[in-house]
Amino acid sequence: MSDQKTFGVMLFEGFELLDVFGPLEAFGMLANMGRCRVLTVAERAGAVASAQGPKVIADFGFTEAGFGDCPPIDILMVPGGIGTRTEITNHTALEWLIAHAQQAEIVASVCTGSAMLAQAGLLDGRRATSNKMVFQWVMEQWPKVKWVHEARWVDDGKFSTSSGVSAGIDMALAIIARITEVETAEQIATWMEYEWHRDAGWDPFAKITR
Amino acid sequence: MSDQKTFGVMLFEGFELLDVFGPLEAFGMLANMGRCRVLTVAERAGAVASAQGPKVIADFGFTEAGFGDCPPIDILMVPGGIGTRTEITNHTALEWLIAHAQQAEIVASVCTGSAMLAQAGLLDGRRATSNKMVFQWVMEQWPKVKWVHEARWVDDGKFSTSSGVSAGIDMALAIIARITEVETAEQIATWMEYEWHRDAGWDPFAKITR
Repeated sequence: MSDQKTFGVMLFEGFELLDVFGPLEAFGMLANMGRCRVLTVAERAGAVASAQGPKVIADFGFTEAGFGDCPPIDILMVPGGIGTRTEITNHTALEWLIAHAQQAEIVASVCTGSAMLAQAGLLDGRRATSNKMVFQWVMEQWPKVKWVHEARWVDDGKFSTSSGVSAGIDMALAIIARITEVETAEQIATWMEYEWHRDAGWDPFAKITR
Repeated sequence: MSDQKTFGVMLFEGFELLDVFGPLEAFGMLANMGRCRVLTVAERAGAVASAQGPKVIADFGFTEAGFGDCPPIDILMVPGGIGTRTEITNHTALEWLIAHAQQAEIVASVCTGSAMLAQAGLLDGRRATSNKMVFQWVMEQWPKVKWVHEARWVDDGKFSTSSGVSAGIDMALAIIARITEVETAEQIATWMEYEWHRDAGWDPFAKITR
C-alpha cells in the first residue's frame, strides 16, 4: 500500500469517546507526519453527541448532497458505545457501511463497533471480537460470526476487530505498522507515551465474561 | 469531597486529542454512574480544532456573556498539544485559568498542559512533570517549577500534572480513586479494558530526553 491513505471514522449518537479518539490520536500523528489523512463521517455533518456527553463535529454527512466531497476511505473504522444498540437498526447507516466497507482496504472496529459490522453481515463466517462486557449479547445476536473471546484484537482478511475501548489503540498501532513500518508505529507509541500491547492475544479482560 | 463534582476540560486550538479524551472517557464513565458531571470550556463556545484535525464542541465560552451558566469547575484539566505554544501567550486564557484554578479543588494537566499552568505562575515552587519530548523546553522556560523528569504523573497540593498524552488516563484514574473509592477507579479501568498504571513513578519514557 502507498503511504497517503485516508483513515475515516464513522460517528453516531452515543459513540464511545476513547473508541474514536485513541485510534484517531495514533492516525492523527501519522497524518501530522504527512503519511495519511484523517476524517470523520456521520449520517449528517456537524455535531454528534458521544455516550459521555461531549460533542464532536462530523466532517462529512453520508445522507447529504455534499458527501461527494468526501475522499475515498481506505481504512474505515466503526467505534462502539451505547449508541450501537440503536444504530444497528439504522438501515441508512448499515447500507452506507456495507458499500464503503466493500471499497475500503481495511475495515476496523472498536468495542461494540463489531456489532454494527455483524449486523451489516460483514463478519459472517469470519473471526472477530468485541467488548468483554457484552460478549454474551454479540454471540447470541450474531451466531454466524466466529467470535473469539480471548483477544485484544482479531484480524481476518481486511477486517480488524478489537475488544473494549482502549484496545482500539493497540489495534490502530498494529494497522499503522502494517501499512507503514513497525518503526513508525513504535515512534507514534513513544510520542503517545503509550505502552503498546503488540500481542493480539493479550487479554486480561477476557475473564470478565464467559 | 462529595460525589457530584464537575470535571471541566479547557480546550484551545491545537489541543492534543488523547490528552482530552483519555481522561474524559474515565470521568465520562463516572458521570454515567451519576457521580460527576463533565463539560468542556474554551475562549468561545463551539467548534475547536484539535492538533490532529478533528473538531470538538466547547460547551462554554469563557469570554462570552453566557459563561455565567457554566457551573463551578471542581476538577479543572488543561491538555497539551502543539497549540500550547500559542496559548501560553493568550492573556485572556491565562487570566481565566488563574481565577478558576483558585476556585477548583483539583487542577490537572496532561502533557504540555503543565506549560500553561507554569506560564500562569501556578506551579512556582511546586513539583510537576510534562511530556518527555519537550522536557528541556519546560525546564528552561519555567525554572521556578521543580520539574520531575521520571514520573507518570506528579501530585503537589491540589495540582496533578501528568506526562505525555496517554499518561493522562493513569492520572485521571488516580484522581477518581481519590475523590471516590479505589474500587470505582478499578471498575472504570476494567470497563475501559485499560491496564491502569497505578504507580505515579512508572515512566519508561523518561529515557527519551535528559
